[in-house]
Parts: sequence; C-alpha cells; structure tokens
Amino acid sequence: MSLLECVNSPQDLKKLSVDQLKLYAKEVRAYITDVVNKNGGHLSSNLGAVDFTIALHYVFDCPNDKIVFDVGHQSYTHKLITGRRNKFALLRSEGGVSGYENMKESDCDAFTTGHSSTSLSVAMGLAKARDLQDKKHDVIAVVGDGALTGGLSYEGLNNIGGAGVGIIVVLNDNGMSISENVGSISSCFGNQSDKQNAGVFFENMGFEYFGPIDGNDIEKCITALLKLKGSQKPVVLHLKTKKGLGYEQAENNAEKYHGIEHTEANCGKFSDLVGKTLVSMAEKDRSVVAITAAMALGTGLSDMREKFPERFFDVGIAEQHAVTMSAGLATGGLKPYFAVYSTFLQRAYDQILHDIGITSAPVRLLVDKSGVVASDGATHQGLYDISFLSSAPNMTVLSPANGEELNKMLYWSLSYDKPLAIRYPKNYLLGGKSYKTENPLCWEYAKNSNNNVTILAVGNRMIDLALQLNCECDVVNARCIKPLDEKILTSLNEPDRLIITLEDGVLNGGFGSAVLSFLNRQGKKCEIISLGFSDEVWDELSMTVSLEKSGLTKGNLEKIISSYRANCEKILE
Amino acid sequence: MSLLECVNSPQDLKKLSVDQLKLYAKEVRAYITDVVNKNGGHLSSNLGAVDFTIALHYVFDCPNDKIVFDVGHQSYTHKLITGRRNKFALLRSEGGVSGYENMKESDCDAFTTGHSSTSLSVAMGLAKARDLQDKKHDVIAVVGDGALTGGLSYEGLNNIGGAGVGIIVVLNDNGMSISENVGSISSCFGNQSDKQNAGVFFENMGFEYFGPIDGNDIEKCITALLKLKGSQKPVVLHLKTKKGLGYEQAENNAEKYHGIEHTEANCGKFSDLVGKTLVSMAEKDRSVVAITAAMALGTGLSDMREKFPERFFDVGIAEQHAVTMSAGLATGGLKPYFAVYSTFLQRAYDQILHDIGITSAPVRLLVDKSGVVASDGATHQGLYDISFLSSAPNMTVLSPANGEELNKMLYWSLSYDKPLAIRYPKNYLLGGKSYKTENPLCWEYAKNSNNNVTILAVGNRMIDLALQLNCECDVVNARCIKPLDEKILTSLNEPDRLIITLEDGVLNGGFGSAVLSFLNRQGKKCEIISLGFSDEVWDELSMTVSLEKSGLTKGNLEKIISSYRANCEKILE
Repeated sequence: MSLLECVNSPQDLKKLSVDQLKLYAKEVRAYITDVVNKNGGHLSSNLGAVDFTIALHYVFDCPNDKIVFDVGHQSYTHKLITGRRNKFALLRSEGGVSGYENMKESDCDAFTTGHSSTSLSVAMGLAKARDLQDKKHDVIAVVGDGALTGGLSYEGLNNIGGAGVGIIVVLNDNGMSISENVGSISSCFGNQSDKQNAGVFFENMGFEYFGPIDGNDIEKCITALLKLKGSQKPVVLHLKTKKGLGYEQAENNAEKYHGIEHTEANCGKFSDLVGKTLVSMAEKDRSVVAITAAMALGTGLSDMREKFPERFFDVGIAEQHAVTMSAGLATGGLKPYFAVYSTFLQRAYDQILHDIGITSAPVRLLVDKSGVVASDGATHQGLYDISFLSSAPNMTVLSPANGEELNKMLYWSLSYDKPLAIRYPKNYLLGGKSYKTENPLCWEYAKNSNNNVTILAVGNRMIDLALQLNCECDVVNARCIKPLDEKILTSLNEPDRLIITLEDGVLNGGFGSAVLSFLNRQGKKCEIISLGFSDEVWDELSMTVSLEKSGLTKGNLEKIISSYRANCEKILE
Repeated sequence: MSLLECVNSPQDLKKLSVDQLKLYAKEVRAYITDVVNKNGGHLSSNLGAVDFTIALHYVFDCPNDKIVFDVGHQSYTHKLITGRRNKFALLRSEGGVSGYENMKESDCDAFTTGHSSTSLSVAMGLAKARDLQDKKHDVIAVVGDGALTGGLSYEGLNNIGGAGVGIIVVLNDNGMSISENVGSISSCFGNQSDKQNAGVFFENMGFEYFGPIDGNDIEKCITALLKLKGSQKPVVLHLKTKKGLGYEQAENNAEKYHGIEHTEANCGKFSDLVGKTLVSMAEKDRSVVAITAAMALGTGLSDMREKFPERFFDVGIAEQHAVTMSAGLATGGLKPYFAVYSTFLQRAYDQILHDIGITSAPVRLLVDKSGVVASDGATHQGLYDISFLSSAPNMTVLSPANGEELNKMLYWSLSYDKPLAIRYPKNYLLGGKSYKTENPLCWEYAKNSNNNVTILAVGNRMIDLALQLNCECDVVNARCIKPLDEKILTSLNEPDRLIITLEDGVLNGGFGSAVLSFLNRQGKKCEIISLGFSDEVWDELSMTVSLEKSGLTKGNLEKIISSYRANCEKILE
C-alpha cells in the first residue's frame, strides 16, 4: 500500500515520520502530474506547493485551524490530504473535485477561492470572528503565485498589519505570477540577497517577518511553522519555492505549464487569433498597444510581447489598474487593447463604468473565456459580462460568430472611437458558415427562409447550436449585443412569429431581457422566449451539463419550436 | 480688483509675485469657504490643497502638462485658476461646475475623476502614451486624502515603479482619509519623524522620494516642484498639509467638514437611522459587527464606532477588502453589516459575486445614497446597484419605503441567513404612510382600490411619487426587488391592466426588466411600462432635472395613465 493511499485525513499525515513525509510528497507529485496530464488543470503552481502544504497539515489541525489558499490553484495537495484522493482522479470533471478550495467539498476548506488576492481579506474576517467569539485556533493565509500584485492583497495587508490581528501569512514565493512577475514589488522577492527588501516591505505593513526559507524542504517548513503556531500578531513566513518542481518540463517552462488545457477537436482558439491579428494590426498602426493582467500566454498576447515589447504592458494581476491605465492610454491618443478573461474583468467593474464609460475613452476590451466555462466551476464562469457591460454608459458589446468574424471586428475596431468590448469563449469551430460582417453593429441572417420562428443567437456557441436544428427556423447572428439592431427587431415584431433569444450568460440584465424590453416599448406583437443562465451558482464541472440545465440544447429548442407550431395550428383550427 | 478676479488662466497666475500668490491663496480660501457653505461640497480637503495647487500651476503648464487630481475633491483651486471662477459660484448645481475634475469642463482637466485611487493608473496611461508618441510634457498625479489605502493605488504604484516611467506623484498627506486614516501604511506618514518610513515605502515601490515639506508653504512647494519638473523617472514629493486650513471649524473637525451637505426640509437621513438602529441591535445581539470603508460619519456608523469599538471596522478606502472581509466574518459566525455608498460598492462587484454570492455568506450590505444623486454628478450616481446586485447568485435586494420600514428590515435581517442588500437614498420624508412590513420579502399595497392601473414602485422616492398622483391607480410598495413577489405579479397579469414600474436606477438589468421577463415567461396578458434611467452618462447636477429627463414625474405619470385609459375607452367603443 502506498503512502498516498494511507493518508486520508490530516490525522493520518501526522503519524508519518519526516522521511515518510518526503516519500509521500513524491507520490503526491506523481499523482498530481498524472491526473493533470489527463484532465487538465494547474500543474506548475501545485507542484511547487506540495512540500509546504504537507508541513502545514503536519503542524496545524484542520478543520479547527483555518487555512485559506489564495487563488486556490495551490490546493491540490491540500485536497489529497483531506480525504479527496479518489475524487481527485476526476479533477475538474463531473463527479470529481474542483480545481480550487471549495467549502462545499470539505469542512477543511476554510473558504471558497478561485480569483486571486482574496485570502488575506478572508483571513482578516475569520480571525476577527475568532477573536470576538473567544475561540482559539490559527488562521493561515497562503499567498502566492503573484497574488501580491493585486490591490486587494494590499488592502488586506494594510488592514491586518494596522489592526495587529493574529494571522499567519505563508508567502509562497516562486518568483512567478502566471507570466513572469512584474512591478516593483516583485523585485523585493527576486532572490535570496533581497531578503532585506522583502522583510522591510512586510515590516512596513505591520507584520513580523520570518525567512526566507526553502519552501520545498518539508523539515525546514515544519520547524518554521511550529514557531509561528498560535501567533497573536500578524506574521509572515517567506517561502522560496520552485514552480513545477519534480516535473522537468514544467520546471523549465512554468508559464506554459501553469495550467494545462486540452483543446477540443476541430476547434481554433480565439486567443491565438487575437495574438496574430493584433500583431498585424500593430505593424500597420503605431498607436495599437496591448495590455494584459499577468495572462500574456492565456489571452494570446505573447506574440505582441515578443514583437512589440514597448507597446505591450503586463501589469500583473491588477485588472482594475489595467482598465484605468487603458483609459489613460486612450485619452493620451493611443488605441489600447486589454485582453482579459471575462471572469477577471469582473474585478474592474467600477473602472469600466467610471474611467471608460463616463469618459467614453475608446478602450477595446477583449473579453476571453466568456460564457459558460468547462472544468473551472463557479468562480470562473464568464456568465456575467453581458449583464455588467451593458449597464455601462457609451459601451458597445460585440460577440463574433467565428474566428473570421473576430478578425473582421478587430480590424474594424481600429477606427471605432468609443468604448468597445468584444466577448468570445475559448474555442470556435473550424470551417462552417462565413459572414459578410459589413458593419459589426448590425446583425446578419445566418439562415433565412422567411420562417415564422426566428432565433437571435449571440456568439459562436449559440449560433452553431441554432444552425444544427433539424426544424425550420431562421437564425440571426446577433453579433452586436449593445446596441441592439433595432431595424431587424422591428421587422420581426409581428403576430404569428416566435423569437427565441440564445445567450450563454445570465438572463438578468442579459441580451434576451434587452430584446424583450425593446419589443415591449414598441408594442410587442410577436412571442418571445429567452434562453440563458439563471442566477444560481453554476458550479458544474461540465459545460454540457450546464448547457443542458439551461435548456440550451438542440432537443429543447426543437421541442419549443414544434410546440409553438402545434399551438399555432390549434388556434387556426 | 481682487487677485481672484485677475487670475483667469494659469498664464495669469504665473505673472504674480510670491507675495501676491500668498494673497491670492487667501482670497481663494475665502471664496471656496463662501461657496461651499452656500452650495455644499468638499471643504476641508480643498482648503488643505490651495497652496500646493497654486504652486503646481506656477511651475507646470496646463493643458500641455497633465495634472490628475485623485478623488477630484481637491480640485476646487485648480478650477478657479483654470478659468472657471464665475461658474464656481454655482458649484455642484445646474449650470455651474461639478465638484470633481472633469474633461468636459476644461481642457486643463487631464481626466475625469471622482472615485478615489484612480490617478496613478491614469497617469501611467497618459505617460506611456506621451513616451510612445515622443511627446514632451509632465504628467503629475496628485494623490491624497487616504487614496493610498485603496488597492488600485498600489497596483498603480507597483506598475509605475516597476516600469520606471517619468511621472511626478504629489502626495497630499493631511493625515486623514475621510475619517481618520487607518491601516499600517498610514503609520508611515504619521509625523515628520516618520520621514524615513515613508521614504522607504516609496523607494521599495521604485520611486525616488523627496520630502516631506510643508504643502501649505507656496514658496517651498514651488522650489521643490521646479527640481522635479521634467523628471524622466518616477518621483514622489511628499507634502504635509493641514486639512481645512484657514477655516477654524474645519481645521478642528476635519471629518465633519470633509464634505458639507444641506439636509432637505421635512426629511430624515437614512444613515442616521442606520447608526441608531445598528447600535440597538448590537446591544441585543453580540454577533452584530459593522464595517465601513472610511465613511463612518457619512454612512451613520460613528455611533457604532463609539459604543462598540471592538465590533466596528474602518478598513480605509478599500471596498473590495471590506466585502471579502465581511464574507470572512460571516463565515466565521458573525453578522456583518457593511454600510457603503452605492457608487463605491461598484468597486467590489467581483467580491460580491465571488466571495458573497457563490459562497452564500450572509453579509448584509447597507447600500446608502442609492439611486440618482444631487450635485455630485456622473461619477457618484447610485443608479447601477439594482442591476449589478441582481445578477449575483443568492442575493436578496430590498428597498424600504421610509425610515420606519428600514428599521423593520434591519431587525428582520438579524435572522436572515443569506446575502442581503438593502438600498436606500440619502433622505426619506418624515411622516407619511405606515406599512405592516410583515415579511420584507413580500410586497404590500400602499394604495388599493382594485384599479386597472397598478404602479409597482421601488423605494421611498418612487413610492412617494406614486402616492402623489391625482389620478386613480393602485400603488404597490415593491420593497423586495429580488426575488420578485410572484404572487402579486401573477394576480396582476390580466388583460385590461396597465402595470407601471418605477425605479431610480438604470433600466438595463433593472427592476422593470425583471418584472417584464417574469410576466413574459408567464404569458403576459397585461400591459407594462417601465420607467427608470437610460444608460447615458447622468452628469446633471440637479436631481430634479435627472428625474424629469427620465419621465419620473407626476405630470408624466398622469399623462401615461390618462392616455392608457383613453385608449381603453376607444377600444371599448
């Protein structure tokens, strides 16, 4: 029996000798590498975190002590130790464990994490709740992987340090954000000789500083953590770790192996197109600049980074700053393109309203991984962007039908002088229908036979779905979500017509609700059914299941249409 | 002729001698005090900024050089120098100047500001745009008034310092946020002897540090700024200023005189109630805790601060942290109440979705100054909260009809175990109708005579408006915005009925759109008209004008109803 199989709880772990812990770490690494290579997931970050996580569980007592893993994608080892070894085989898929810390999975998960930089604030809340209720336990925030570039981390540090609360911060310093770390703060953690800088930074923030020590040395970590256990004031333990440790490929290319994702068959990635097209635009137009928040590779901007380093800005995990800086760049006369995952753009909602919307600064937001996501679960859904972008003044929101259309939109955007968001999911199908896209602000029929059922479909996924139906219906590529194509809508507003709106976003404040409101103002004559996502928590780990639950399937659409037609006939009789 | 009248541009200012500049400063102070006492506005912060602003315009050349005033409420002197003296008499009112830096008002306003902590990011964008276009001018960010506790500031500092861009940061250090400064960082700026700490902080962030010097000494400021003019790298000039200088009352109670607002006649302030009621709840229930983001006085929490200091948390201008910390407090077993202005809660949109919504942590958001605001203009509108709160999973959104109902909702919330937001504007009318409010999740008729026109009104302003109408109609106190009262809605869904929804929020994703979507799903039989705010920029400085433009007036409602009735009669004929 392997040690991996023997450890099914933190109590089991505590029975092992230090040598056994080291062996266990090896087995954990092998198992994580194996599962991630199969299922996809965060590899490098988790491999670097194996040893100190073992030490944490050796020293502290979960669930009584509260360990909050920032970002959550350092939490695989924690999951294995806390009784989720079997389910881990199904990592990031239906019936398995999610890729992040999640209170629904285990009472050893002190909070639900996913987005970066939240752990210090959560820890502050948990620690204050502990103190006010006279409870005794430790609260540990494991911060790392570039989370310190996020302003929320700093707000947390400032408050914890100022209030002098008993919290143990474990800084997992692997010298990398997701891309390479950026900004002045990362230089504090550059190498061992910089010990003094990092210490001064944390001491200035009101923390007692310990370290740096080797975070991949279990024994040293245990010794250090034992000293900090029960601390009544803010302390930070600085661990130097190696991202990807134990898996050679990952060690040598940590950015690439930060996360592993398998590409679907017959699909292109929108981000690949963004990268290539932006470079070619930048070659022709000197005012094109690109911004990323620590996701150059993920969002396709690594080509820009290479070809036009002076016109490429990686600001670190700092989406608020990215948006407001983009507004400054646009106001200064440039054409900024900020490529960002939909779920992370949520962090800049106020900056979109306040610095882009109100000023009407022509910033181009390239909103990647919009719509429902596979495998990443509730914290990473891109379901809210239509809703939160649509309420911003002066904002135009587009969604392309395929890669070709995204390219046309990008070139068109060069001369568009208002705030613009283009949203797209990860993949698009290769081949398929082509569009004129003469004016991205207008809709275009994808299929038209003067039918009495018209589907208004937003984005490639929904259009592809609509075009698959085996029943007669017209399909409109509703590529412009805001403003609506009022001409087409007005032409469709007649009795004996059913309009179906399809979107992979929340229905509250979504496309369907905008269409309905417009038609209602005009005096609605047609029928309209809006399909999309409810405002529940979408923590399914399968995109198919989420789409099914929302009725966004061929079968459900065909059923709706045939039932409408049957009803029409009944009325005629 | 006074010097005040002589200076109508930065060029005029440059002609004055240092003694004249000092005299001018005196006149500016008197004028600002006079106008603010009449019109309301930010007094203390602006009085402290008079002298160094004069120095800035003496040394730099606007509009060629770009000065970005963080928060914007230090910009009154800047407005007077840049040709807006006459309009300043109408500060914050229709036809006058707004209270913040605003690109629409003058080309000397380098950006439009309002919310805190944006200036460094804007400056980074402007400076990069300058460098890439080979332009030559200075970019100055005037940061102060607690803006450094906001994470966005830190994201900006980190990026500017790391990139080594030529930006001059002027730190207006008056030792105060809006309430007293909090957190570890403020201790760096505590007093002259701490010079070393502040220097180290900025040097760690990649800036060259100068100061501290007396920011109320024009001559010293000029000398210091002249040395920094044209800097090719990031520098910070640390100015010590006195908030409220020159107006004794304001000097002695800077928190009170931070902003002056005149209370309307016959009105109570919701924030006063919040303060008193929370204290009485906290006396009975030990788990009640209150959180503010530097607005203890404004949101009514100063009573909590005094009576239960250990259960009161001022986290500084750090709304993201406030929300996520609240989620931690709730998860740890307490009952957190975070009182915050609607416009500032926008800054925590992702934290509401990610840390409250997904986890369903029972945090109580007390959303003050919701709806349209007077005088503060576009950057401070509370028009978006219904829309952005409604898309969050597990969120309940309430809006009270008056002060009495807010109290009932607060007591009721003690035993409510889900995320909750209660939104209310600044004032409510004293006296008036009383409600049973047996269950805040249900609506209640404010007026019912089985009429064929039913108004669904959200919150006190809209209910008060509906109750004023001189025509027959039923009025529902739609106090629960999410979830909807489906029972009442279903009962109203019949032919020959007009439903009018009233809300002082944006229509996109608002209450009316939710009502319409629900009725459409049920098979809508009634007519429905939704009134609220469009997605334009609402930069009117008069609430009355904004309400009129949106049709939220007695006259417009009476017109809609009588035209509906005339139409009904025509059909009957």
